[in-house]
This record gives sequence, structure tokens and C-alpha cells, in this order.
Amino acid sequence: MYVRDTIAAISTPIGEGGIGIVRISGPDALPVAQQIFRTKSGGGLKSHRFCYGVISDSATGDVVDEGMTVYMKGPNSYTREDVVEIQSHGGTLVVSRVLDLVLAAGVRLAQPGEFTKRAFLNGRIDLVQAEAIMDVISSRTDASLALAQHQREGLLSQKIGKVRDGVLHALAFIEAVIDFPEEDIDVAIEADVMGRIAPAIDDLKTLVEGFDEGRVLRDGVSVVIAGKPNVGKSSLLNTLLKEKRAIVTSVPGTTRDLIEEVVNIEGLPVRLLDTAGIRESDDHVEQEGVRLTLERIPRADLVLFVVDGSASFTSEDESILQAIGTKCFLVVKSKADLPGTCVLPGALEGKAVSLSTHDGTGVAELRKAIHHTFVHGHATDSREYVAVSKARHRDALVRALAALESFRLNLEAGVNHELLPIDLRDALEALGSVTGETTTDDVLDLIFSSFCIGK
Amino acid sequence: MYVRDTIAAISTPIGEGGIGIVRISGPDALPVAQQIFRTKSGGGLKSHRFCYGVISDSATGDVVDEGMTVYMKGPNSYTREDVVEIQSHGGTLVVSRVLDLVLAAGVRLAQPGEFTKRAFLNGRIDLVQAEAIMDVISSRTDASLALAQHQREGLLSQKIGKVRDGVLHALAFIEAVIDFPEEDIDVAIEADVMGRIAPAIDDLKTLVEGFDEGRVLRDGVSVVIAGKPNVGKSSLLNTLLKEKRAIVTSVPGTTRDLIEEVVNIEGLPVRLLDTAGIRESDDHVEQEGVRLTLERIPRADLVLFVVDGSASFTSEDESILQAIGTKCFLVVKSKADLPGTCVLPGALEGKAVSLSTHDGTGVAELRKAIHHTFVHGHATDSREYVAVSKARHRDALVRALAALESFRLNLEAGVNHELLPIDLRDALEALGSVTGETTTDDVLDLIFSSFCIGK
Repeated sequence: MYVRDTIAAISTPIGEGGIGIVRISGPDALPVAQQIFRTKSGGGLKSHRFCYGVISDSATGDVVDEGMTVYMKGPNSYTREDVVEIQSHGGTLVVSRVLDLVLAAGVRLAQPGEFTKRAFLNGRIDLVQAEAIMDVISSRTDASLALAQHQREGLLSQKIGKVRDGVLHALAFIEAVIDFPEEDIDVAIEADVMGRIAPAIDDLKTLVEGFDEGRVLRDGVSVVIAGKPNVGKSSLLNTLLKEKRAIVTSVPGTTRDLIEEVVNIEGLPVRLLDTAGIRESDDHVEQEGVRLTLERIPRADLVLFVVDGSASFTSEDESILQAIGTKCFLVVKSKADLPGTCVLPGALEGKAVSLSTHDGTGVAELRKAIHHTFVHGHATDSREYVAVSKARHRDALVRALAALESFRLNLEAGVNHELLPIDLRDALEALGSVTGETTTDDVLDLIFSSFCIGK
Repeated sequence: MYVRDTIAAISTPIGEGGIGIVRISGPDALPVAQQIFRTKSGGGLKSHRFCYGVISDSATGDVVDEGMTVYMKGPNSYTREDVVEIQSHGGTLVVSRVLDLVLAAGVRLAQPGEFTKRAFLNGRIDLVQAEAIMDVISSRTDASLALAQHQREGLLSQKIGKVRDGVLHALAFIEAVIDFPEEDIDVAIEADVMGRIAPAIDDLKTLVEGFDEGRVLRDGVSVVIAGKPNVGKSSLLNTLLKEKRAIVTSVPGTTRDLIEEVVNIEGLPVRLLDTAGIRESDDHVEQEGVRLTLERIPRADLVLFVVDGSASFTSEDESILQAIGTKCFLVVKSKADLPGTCVLPGALEGKAVSLSTHDGTGVAELRKAIHHTFVHGHATDSREYVAVSKARHRDALVRALAALESFRLNLEAGVNHELLPIDLRDALEALGSVTGETTTDDVLDLIFSSFCIGK
């Protein structure tokens, strides 16, 4: 349900900064803004004119701040509604006070993502583009940002639109055949229709296959460093983090939050867990570190299995290898600057990178190997690169693909023409759920609830 | 030294949000913005016109984001220079990328507070107003925000200006007497000059006396909760914080940061230390908590000394009282909902508040007592309330006051007229150092270095 009331929220990140913005959208945006903002020149707010003035409480006359205000008359605005942005100084309290004034004037506090949801509901952007806006905001690497921007600009929507056009054309053709059964165009059907559906199937396959890569670029991957004590796990962690960090731990009965660090490995956002960096000793802290590491292995996308390259491969190493099991892993032979060579059991050698955190040997090679584990040679930084990066999109595209393949089988099997549109309509419904034409309110609510406030 | 180059910085707080802003100021602001921002309409940027368009890397053509850009032609801008603000989506990475584009175009990264420093150097605001802007941003309570806004609007500067006018008038009069010694106006001097200087002295005294109150409103006060185990310190802390928080602690060899919570007590920002909330038991955590509490007492502005109101005052309580020594403190008799009465030694009873965190008895009274310890009945929320809140200002005003009092003594003692201007010039120099006319570059650098980036 889209109630056209007026909403407002703080649109800048919370914290101290030079500028904070309260955004208002809806029919009352302008009158409310004029109630609390007085231009220095004395003139009114004109659309897209950036005005200096004073923000004050019209009830008490108290000045809350000075600032700049801009009114954007719909539909030339983010939401296509009338929008006003009030810029004040960027303190946590002062921006809240500006918002308080707006809310006191009868405006409702916006829900997370509600401005973008209105942009979608008012047809300025489709759902893929709306979702990509949140990806732009949360991007941690250039590659994930580029992917998000391509989706925001509509490149993925265009690909889906092309598939949809093919399906729509095939559907129109088949419906024409159904409407005019007397005409003998059976032979032509298969050629013409499949000339539309076959490329659509190919395009969907390519999109679905690109998902794994798109997903890791968007969400990043989780990497755990495992290995027996004193093989150099902390040094490896610090090398990848490029700076030493304070390690915190717990005593029983107090809270301990695992800390993840996101590092950028060749454009791939990699979440490294700090458990590996926990001090090694025989006290409870060490046991805790080992336990946490083992606990995280099943949930990791990749395990970096560190062995001491200057010593023998021991039964302890072997037992860690057992714990890794069938997980995707890379072997890191540490201490490559020291004499002595570790001989790895058979197949492991091919997965191993020799590395020295002292002289930097192998660090670049390891970074490349981590990247290559997830991203395979596509020019992810090119301006044409588009991939599906959300499970919601992938699932819908898989449904569309299944429907089109079912359609092809039925067509080839010569089923009654009247049955053929069913699969095509299923495919259209699935495609429409990606771009938002057929998405239910529940799903929309779920999608926008993951947005930040003020977007 | 004010080099008129072009500077840029991210002006919104760092973090995820709907909108991020990169601000550029200086002669190249417009050409640089036009290099990386292309309006959707194809037109150029016009002053104070809010334009939608695309932010891209002019070298590669890569789109970094879409956004809004506004150009403000000097002197109608924050710095009085040409200013451009580029609004992108508010992610940490995407805003950094926009800044990167600006810096790549040859713009220098702004230092903390450099935009405001330019506003000051270009005469748009005086130094008191410039400093107040950072106070506005870091304000934590309505009272501290109001104080900061009054200073930002120039109310404190006006009071100082009035003192300065009096001194200037007296100085002109005395110099006229020196220049025309033949005229017999000696008798008139004292009446006229002191008619100017006496109110100036009074005004300065009032300002200096208001400092303690202004300071606590701006900087807040530090409060430590002390007491023997199980008297209800944690409950008191939680009541004042109004929510339970996770307590973290340390094991030897790992880092532990003290956590401060700022709570708003009747407009007074109160920093409560979480040490009091550390679990009470006989293990090392408890000893740590006691040690930290005792360590913080000397640095606290106020100690809340908690005794069990349902039990007797013991020698343990007595020893904590010894540790508090001559510190400012309030006694909290906890567990007022339980039977039993604690009899406090003589003078303590007058400082005691009986409190129950179960039924809320005494909580409001305690909050008032804390507030009253620091703020004495001034209408701190009135629109005329102005106080000196910075040690730098207080010190300079004390110097001005001393100079004027020395002047008065010399005048009354009948010293040679030629010597009288010395004190008056000292007073003017001190007053000018507050508002910025006579402040040295070193002091300016120090002041603005405490600003946030982008302001």
C-alpha cells in the first residue's frame, strides 16, 4: 500500500561531520519546510534553488541552526514527489533537532529505504535499480561498486528486459495462433517462436551462471586462517590487514563479539576473522581461539591452511587438514625466508603458496590465488560487466529459465497450443518479480527494510 | 599563512547513509566540478542552482555515481570563496571515490576545519563564531547546543565588542589628553573614562564568572560511581543510562578501553564511566574494577558515593569516603524500598539522596542534585543566555580584566597620562585574541585542528 503522506528522515550518516541533511518527501514537504526554514533573503523557496537561511522552531522562535535548504518540485526529485532537503551543521544532536521540528509539524518518520521505495513506486527506477542503490552505499571495493553502479544504471534491467521482450513476442505469436486456429501456421510457429525463446534461454543461463561471481563481488567472501600454533597465522593476518590491530578477548560471563575485518583483495571484499590473531599460549585464550577457528571453518568460503614451511608436516597439521574436510582451501607454506623445506602430502603441493611475511615473498601470489578462487577471468572492471548478485534475482531467473525450458519441451512435444502460454506467463511473472512489475508488497517491504534510514 | 588554493573534503560523517557530500572551495572549484560532473540537462552549473547529473572519471569515462551538485559563487558561500558541493549516495567507498576524482584534478585535501578557517580569514565570521560551529556539531544536550548556537550567532562576540568599544573610547580620550596637554581637562578624565571602563570591568567579571557554568554545559562533567560491592552501583548506572549495556573487560596482555557513556541530565552532558558496572565477584575482574574506580576519582568532577540504605554504614564505606577525600561528591542511599535505615556520619546526611532503582524513588531528585552541583539557577535555556565556555576565552578575558583593573589603579593613583594607554592596549589585545583580530597563526592552527574534517 502506498499512502501518499509526507515522510522525513536524516539522510546523512549518523555522526559528527560538517553537514547533516534532513530529507522530506511528499505533498507537505514545501509548507513544512517554509514553516521551520526562513531564507536570509526573505524570499520563498523556489524549485532547485539552494537557499541560505535559519532553521528555527516556529512555536518558540528558538534558532536551531543556520543552514542551506533546497526544494525540488516533483516529479524532478529523487522520489518524484515534492522533496525538500534541509542542510544543517552535521552534529548528531543538531540534525536530530531539525528532524524533530519537521516531525512536530506533522510529518511521519520515514522507514528504512522509503524514499527509494517511492522512487520505485512512482516509476522513476525499477526494483533492480532500487536495490542497487543500497549496494552502491554498502560497496567496499571498486569491483563491487562498479557492479552496483551498472545495476543502478539499469544494465541488468536491460538484459532482463531483452529476455522479457523475446518471451512477450513469442506469447503474442502463440496467442494469435490460438485466436485464429483455422490458419495453417503450425510449421512457422516453431521456427519463429524458438527464434525468440532460444536466445532468451541462453541469456538467462549466462545470467544465472554469473551469479556466484556477482554474489562474491557484492557480499564478499569469508576467509578463515587455520593452522597449529606458531606457524605464522597472526603474521599472515597482519600482512593481509596491513596493520596491527588490538586483539580483544573475553572472560567467562562477559560478552565477546567476533570482529571481522574486510580487506580488499584485487577488488574482492574479503572478510577475515580475527580469531586467528588471538595470542597463542596454553591458557584459556588459546583454547578459545582454536575452538572459534574450528567453529568458523564450516561457515567460511575459503580456509587458508597455514603450515610452517621451515619444518616438517606433522600429525597436528594432518588433524587440522581433517577438520577442513571438503572445504575450499589454499595451503600457505609460511616462513619461506627460513631454511628447511616442508614436504606436503601429495596433492597439497599444487594448492600451496610459499610465503614470507618478512620479505614479502608470495604475498602477491597468495592475493591472486584468493581472488582466482572466486573470480574467473571475467573483466569485472569493464564498463559492460553486469552480473546477477542477489539470491532473490538468481532464484527468480532460475524459475524463468525452468519455465522457458518447459515451454520448449512442450512445443517440441506438440502439446495443444492452448497450453503453451502457461509457461510463458510463468516466465514473465518470474522476470517481472525481479524488476518489480509483479513483486508482492510483502517482498517489497522485505527488500526496503534492509536499506539504511534516510535513503 | 592563507594560500588561496583549492581544497576539498568529505563534509558528511563517515558511514553508510542516503547522501554523502564532497565539498570543494577555492578558485578552481567550478572548473574541477565541471570536469567530473555532467548535468543531465547538458547545461553548465549556475550559482545556487541544484543540478542532477552524473559523476564520472573524465579520464576513463567510468561512472562513479549519479548525484546532485550545487555551485555557490563567492562571496555567497560558506567560505566566501567559490564553493561546489557534490552529493552522491552515502557509502563510505563511493564518497571516497568522488573525493579521489576531485583530488586527482589537482585539488588539495582540506585540513580539519579549513573551510571554517577560510570563512574566518575572509571575514564572514569572527573566531568566537568559528569555534562555536564545532561546538554546535559536538553538542550532546539541548542546553549545550543552545549555548553553542548563541555563540555562533554572535551573542558572545557582541558582549565582547561592547567591552572593546568602551576601552577604545577611553583610549581615544586619553590619547587626546596626551596630544593636547595644555588643556585642563584632568578632572573630566576620571569621570568620563571611568564611566566607560567601570561597566567594561563589570561585564568582564560577569563573563569570567559564568565560565564554570559555560564550560560544564559545553564539555560536560565526569561522574564516577563509587561504593563497596553489592550496594547497587550497577543498578544506579543502568538507571542513569536507562538501558542495560554489555560490559566488556580484559584479561592481562590484551587491550582494554574504558568506555564512557554520555547521558543528558537536565541538559547537562554527564560522562559516566562504566567501571562501576563491572561485575562484582572476588576474581581479578572485580579487583580491576575497584582499581579503575579509585584511579578515576581524582579526575572526576563529581563522585556518586553509594551506600546501602538498608544496612549499616561500615568501615568499608568509611574507607571509600577516605578515598574520595576532598572531591565534590553526593551520597546515594540505595535500596530505599527495603526496610532498614543506614545512619550516616554527621555531615553526610545533608548531602544524601535516598534512592530506589526498583520503584524509581529519588531518581529525579538525584538528577536534579547532579545538575545543581554544576549549574546554579541561570536560565540556561533562555534566548539571551550567553556564557564563556572555553578556557582560551576565559584566560584572555581574565587578562583583559587584569589590564583594566591595573588601568583603574594607575588612573586613581594619578600616574603620568602617557603611561595609561599601555594597560588599555593590553586589554584590547586580549579581547582581540578572543574574537580573532590579534590571534597568532599558531593559535589559529591549534584551534582549527580540533575541528572535524570537511567543516
